[in-house]
Amino acid sequence: MDVDIGNALSSVASPGVSRDSLERLDERVALAHERIEAGRNADAHGYAALNLPERTDPDAVRAVADSLGDPEALVTVGIGGSALGAATITDALGAGLETAYLDNVDPAWIAERLGRLPLSETAVNVVSRSGTTAETLANFLVVREVFADAGVDWTERTVVTTGESGPLAELADRHDLSRLSVPEGVPGRFSALSPVGLLAAALADVDLEALLAGARAEAESLTESLFDCPAYAYGATAYALNCRGASINAMMPYAESLETYAEWFAQLWAESLGKDGLGATPVCALGATDQHSQLQLYRAGPRDKLVTFVVPSGRPELQIPDTEVDELAYLGGTDLGTLLDAEFAATEASLAAAGRPNVRIELDRVDAHGLGGLLYGMEAACVLVGELSGVNAFDQPAVEWGKRAARGLLGGGEFEEAGAIAGKTSLRVER
Amino acid sequence: MDVDIGNALSSVASPGVSRDSLERLDERVALAHERIEAGRNADAHGYAALNLPERTDPDAVRAVADSLGDPEALVTVGIGGSALGAATITDALGAGLETAYLDNVDPAWIAERLGRLPLSETAVNVVSRSGTTAETLANFLVVREVFADAGVDWTERTVVTTGESGPLAELADRHDLSRLSVPEGVPGRFSALSPVGLLAAALADVDLEALLAGARAEAESLTESLFDCPAYAYGATAYALNCRGASINAMMPYAESLETYAEWFAQLWAESLGKDGLGATPVCALGATDQHSQLQLYRAGPRDKLVTFVVPSGRPELQIPDTEVDELAYLGGTDLGTLLDAEFAATEASLAAAGRPNVRIELDRVDAHGLGGLLYGMEAACVLVGELSGVNAFDQPAVEWGKRAARGLLGGGEFEEAGAIAGKTSLRVER
Repeated sequence: MDVDIGNALSSVASPGVSRDSLERLDERVALAHERIEAGRNADAHGYAALNLPERTDPDAVRAVADSLGDPEALVTVGIGGSALGAATITDALGAGLETAYLDNVDPAWIAERLGRLPLSETAVNVVSRSGTTAETLANFLVVREVFADAGVDWTERTVVTTGESGPLAELADRHDLSRLSVPEGVPGRFSALSPVGLLAAALADVDLEALLAGARAEAESLTESLFDCPAYAYGATAYALNCRGASINAMMPYAESLETYAEWFAQLWAESLGKDGLGATPVCALGATDQHSQLQLYRAGPRDKLVTFVVPSGRPELQIPDTEVDELAYLGGTDLGTLLDAEFAATEASLAAAGRPNVRIELDRVDAHGLGGLLYGMEAACVLVGELSGVNAFDQPAVEWGKRAARGLLGGGEFEEAGAIAGKTSLRVER
Repeated sequence: MDVDIGNALSSVASPGVSRDSLERLDERVALAHERIEAGRNADAHGYAALNLPERTDPDAVRAVADSLGDPEALVTVGIGGSALGAATITDALGAGLETAYLDNVDPAWIAERLGRLPLSETAVNVVSRSGTTAETLANFLVVREVFADAGVDWTERTVVTTGESGPLAELADRHDLSRLSVPEGVPGRFSALSPVGLLAAALADVDLEALLAGARAEAESLTESLFDCPAYAYGATAYALNCRGASINAMMPYAESLETYAEWFAQLWAESLGKDGLGATPVCALGATDQHSQLQLYRAGPRDKLVTFVVPSGRPELQIPDTEVDELAYLGGTDLGTLLDAEFAATEASLAAAGRPNVRIELDRVDAHGLGGLLYGMEAACVLVGELSGVNAFDQPAVEWGKRAARGLLGGGEFEEAGAIAGKTSLRVER
């Protein structure tokens, strides 16, 4: 990926960062890069994620995929990082496979979604590192029974993707299920380029080698200066803008197929950087759609946003037919992609004209190589922001309270957090 | 809908609003309510939207729907408020109809989506008040040709939803197409309860009367005190929190079927209130899914957020089967909805325990009556915030610059905005 940070400079935007400030920040980028390299060399927790492009064996993933035959559909039972990486890849590139990501425990939705699946042609991947995630395990118990009730043997079509031990590993052993490993030292939100993200991709005939090669090319571009490394240029700019008042980062790809990527980015950014009272809030947007929804706010609301565009240079051709209506004649004969590119250029310029900071991330195409590079580049950018901010990008301590409370409520043990729920302060207004 | 603002009080949260401050704010709510009522009585621009539950004639919409036969699928060609209201309703309640909302001009996506439709069983609704929205008109020209190429007569299955005049109205006359009217004085983002939102709902067999009755019940609850009116309680609390530093409003329904509702809310809030440097930034979240993505940030990041929960009391039953694995035994025999409700209670309490403000909006169920009330209640809340903030909630002037620039780029006339694009400041970092 290439990055253009021109519209985030203080000569254009407010908040904005001056070229001089970026030069000063670059000294800290060099130090951060040293720490990141040291972490990668030691395969240290979290940093290990940045080694996945070299470490992940696509053949091993494909072997498990092949053992499932050629299913029409894949149900992935997982939540958060156990689902979003895979979903990002198959939603962008996997049009040939029907995918269902059961990442919620809404009974109406689960029943409806499972009811639409061709069960005898459906494979299952259940993903949880610990093997204890309540939502995932509950859904898996439901899925298992739905298959059994339909007379379809779930054991021969189920893959378990988990850590070395835990209830899921135990279940896999008991039923002799296929296994894939969640790699050690890689938090879920950084696992898209591991087996966690790749099984669905393999079943959807995504070119795994190209995906990993795109990521490797980005890995090789990591260097000590933000002016020489697109991923660090993005991370450092986002950090500098956040320090200067851009408390919101709106991720706005101009490609419908990258809608899920924006959600993946939102998890990456929020869960890695949202701690110690710090962290920009990610917002998912989509060009051109959200020009008719969010742009008014981005251009004329508070000066608290960085807008990040992701734009592919190449798109398939789709001609707009000529029309008999004079007022629309200018549309006829052009291409839908040309219209979308014009909408992007106009939106980018309209923000700059209003002095609102934005960054452009360019991909050649939304293909396996481009997507691999984008995912890796954003992960590296996120790790850099963690270093610059002085937070640990690889833990998520604030979610534990709620997990204990929920478990206590459900009778899964004694947890004082569950008691706090009864003491809720209430001020009800009823119709 | 009922609203509980207890967790937004300053005794619980920071930022938070004290009971005393709410009492003082209530005097301004009374004045705002007077202006809103005067606007409604005069059917003034924008305020007219709050009269839709009484004005919209469901029979007229159903008559047009019936004239389309009983299609398997509906393609809605529209963007922003021309799509999101209808999509919110059919995604929540319309499981029986295949719907495609062409709200983007990405050529890869448009080709793929149209390719999957059963064209001879598909109806088309093209929606644009002005009849000039470039994205919508371009897509309609493409759709028309795809039908023609497949030998399917598009004229007998196309509804045009537009204003009194304009290119689309002209096209409808020329081809003798069915027409529905975008009501006067109702901005697109407020038009869900008009024919704009209801045609798709009618084709999906949604109970239009119940939807409008739910909205009417909410309309009847509008009164001069926030302590007696759920919609105003929500709007006033969101306003007060925004003034006290909650620059972000995360809308987090605990119902998968309300995912699109959150996007609808995001447009309503952003485009209505994001002006004059004001306006909270809406963020779409989803419970329980985003507990594993955004919750870390919401609980431990900057104190700049209000989290708005929407929670139905009733859910369909879906038992979690018993399991042979000891560590998961606590899940067996409970219900998936019980798990989701526990996740909600735990998340709400975990934010309160960390002093993070949140509001709970309660619905009986996600059904037509409940959804009608929710949509109306949020619109009324939004209008109230507009009054309290002193902005015009019904225009969107900041998007015009980009529209002119794009039109200029495409050769649709001379616009100086198009020229600004060439002058972009660039600072490129390449791999």
